[in-house]
Amino acid sequence: MTQRIPNKRTPFDAGFTIGFIGGGQLARMSALQAFRFGMNIAVYATSRDPEPVEHMTPTVFRGNLNDEKALIDFAKNCDLITLENEFLDSSILERVQAATGTPIFPSPKSFGLIEDKLTEKQTFKDAGISVAPFRQIESPSDLGPFGEEFGWPYVLKSAKGGYDGYGNATVRNTEEGMKAWSKLGGNDGRTVIAEAFVPFTMELAVMVARNQTGTVAYPCVESIQQGHICKEIIVPARVPEAIRVQAQELAKIAVESIDGIGLFGFEFFLTHDNQILLNESAPRPHNSGHYTIEGCVTSQFENHIRAVCGLPLGDTSLLAPAAVMINLLGTFNGPASARPVNPILETSNAHLHIYGKTHSRTGRKMAHLTVLGADIEETLSQARQLAEEITI
Amino acid sequence: MTQRIPNKRTPFDAGFTIGFIGGGQLARMSALQAFRFGMNIAVYATSRDPEPVEHMTPTVFRGNLNDEKALIDFAKNCDLITLENEFLDSSILERVQAATGTPIFPSPKSFGLIEDKLTEKQTFKDAGISVAPFRQIESPSDLGPFGEEFGWPYVLKSAKGGYDGYGNATVRNTEEGMKAWSKLGGNDGRTVIAEAFVPFTMELAVMVARNQTGTVAYPCVESIQQGHICKEIIVPARVPEAIRVQAQELAKIAVESIDGIGLFGFEFFLTHDNQILLNESAPRPHNSGHYTIEGCVTSQFENHIRAVCGLPLGDTSLLAPAAVMINLLGTFNGPASARPVNPILETSNAHLHIYGKTHSRTGRKMAHLTVLGADIEETLSQARQLAEEITI
Repeated sequence: MTQRIPNKRTPFDAGFTIGFIGGGQLARMSALQAFRFGMNIAVYATSRDPEPVEHMTPTVFRGNLNDEKALIDFAKNCDLITLENEFLDSSILERVQAATGTPIFPSPKSFGLIEDKLTEKQTFKDAGISVAPFRQIESPSDLGPFGEEFGWPYVLKSAKGGYDGYGNATVRNTEEGMKAWSKLGGNDGRTVIAEAFVPFTMELAVMVARNQTGTVAYPCVESIQQGHICKEIIVPARVPEAIRVQAQELAKIAVESIDGIGLFGFEFFLTHDNQILLNESAPRPHNSGHYTIEGCVTSQFENHIRAVCGLPLGDTSLLAPAAVMINLLGTFNGPASARPVNPILETSNAHLHIYGKTHSRTGRKMAHLTVLGADIEETLSQARQLAEEITI
Repeated sequence: MTQRIPNKRTPFDAGFTIGFIGGGQLARMSALQAFRFGMNIAVYATSRDPEPVEHMTPTVFRGNLNDEKALIDFAKNCDLITLENEFLDSSILERVQAATGTPIFPSPKSFGLIEDKLTEKQTFKDAGISVAPFRQIESPSDLGPFGEEFGWPYVLKSAKGGYDGYGNATVRNTEEGMKAWSKLGGNDGRTVIAEAFVPFTMELAVMVARNQTGTVAYPCVESIQQGHICKEIIVPARVPEAIRVQAQELAKIAVESIDGIGLFGFEFFLTHDNQILLNESAPRPHNSGHYTIEGCVTSQFENHIRAVCGLPLGDTSLLAPAAVMINLLGTFNGPASARPVNPILETSNAHLHIYGKTHSRTGRKMAHLTVLGADIEETLSQARQLAEEITI
């Protein structure tokens, strides 16, 4: 595990520039931390509409994620590159890194081990981590046998590009499976996997930072999803401590199995019989770690910057007995506007983060709210009340 | 006291842009908070060299502080303007505001009441606040009488433009007074004031935020100066609580006396007989409030943004029994570089902020360090040790 800094410029030399591929809220919150350390940032935006980070730097590049030439041009303007999303091709990243000497963290190699859901599940399974039974569906004729072996319904997923429920389908029989397989691009040569339905009692998540100085895990949190989108994060997860510790250990094993350098999120299913199954990984800051900005000594975004820059990792301890994060999702389509904000701003233990997206869209992640407290149920109830008062 | 937002765009509508006149570390830290609220920023840079905030926005204007046309052009691109320094002419600000409809906070009117040291002292004296005896030195013949009345040595100050010890001179007799008067521009028509030397036991400071929603004062802190530059801030000040409360009350009276909207810093002298004299004011975030980023529920920078945007002001309570902030001043001339940073980054209760200045210069404010703790003397000693380990 090595970490190069090109041109002998260290992260604390003037002008050191971290490039973010992707300019959404995750990059935005990491960028705020880079600024606190005196660093500069650059962004490779992939959306036609302005992305949040574009308002935060004069150094904006624009292109698609497969445009190797544009990515090389971007990399030449950065001292180090990190990623905001996982919809990239590790071989392109490898070539961009080789062509420019600009290191990319997480490394293209780590990235290659999780870049599609099939590879990812196999990687973690090989590392001895429990995952739900899965199999590639190479043709519609594989649909029936999987259901017969692991039970109906089960989940079909496109191996690449799915997020927040996009690219997923629950199927109850072969007929539904055929439709979903086709919709997910199976006919067009896209890799589709089947995953057994896991009747979980809770979704857990753990963030881990790792580099050559060590590995630190954040508290195990409870994730409340609604329509496949993270709605609430409750910290710590309302399960026995032994389970939380076990999830942290699994997350550390997972990050080591891919020799990950950077900040990683791991989502788990907790089953009825207290089995912990790894569900998904993310090679970047994660929605389930937003609460760390106020809730922990060192936020996930600070540890993201520390990890990719080869700096000592910060303390992940909680600063309050309870923390609740609620995503504030768009409630309309049009120019973004949040109101009223005063109920949240008037509450000392509540913290509002707005992402600077120019347009709201129903269900789009526009902002979040973190509430710290002494008691988890009271904090949850307070946070829910506050979240109901704002429209965004 | 009214607060207008032009074009009916509120601070939480997409694209709301706060313009900073001046792009140094104070604007940088306020900008980080504006970003957290989803706002955009613009900067009017006055230095030929790149200023820290220029790396944080695509919207950079450049000009001098007296260039009304350039300031108007800048104001047209902002929804609201705030100031990073006090070396401005209130009449220019008034005209910029009138010409563009873009509100400026603190208001040009408030600003006019403190824009030079002579007006400032008179304003606060008229509000019933104790200040050191002072008088305008209109000609060298005033030098002797002031010394005879209030004692030698005393301090000569240029009424405008002084900071961090620049524009100040301690004079022991008329001859030294003549030299200093000339050096401070007395011969060139610049206003020079004499101020009696106050044999203080401690320098105190209080930050206050105020707008139409209310007024909040931060804890009274102790300021350790070295060569007229703030070196350390100790929180809370090591004086009886009654004195700290009195300083907070004086700061609130002072901000009300200028109908101030925004974030203001007040520096006081504490005399041998426990008199509290107002020394200087600053209509902006202040070095003595940097500790609030980690030390208080709401930082001075967050309350700066809240205050100028007309939002409810945040809780100013301390989060730890003791906080110490140490300025990290440049130790060489050349491209900025901080090292080693690891001793600070490895300390959980220490927080490093680097300002992103491209060049270091001996004595220049390059960064700061805040340490939180349970005991003030231990925290101070720990902070000093950490500060000694870093070169910047």
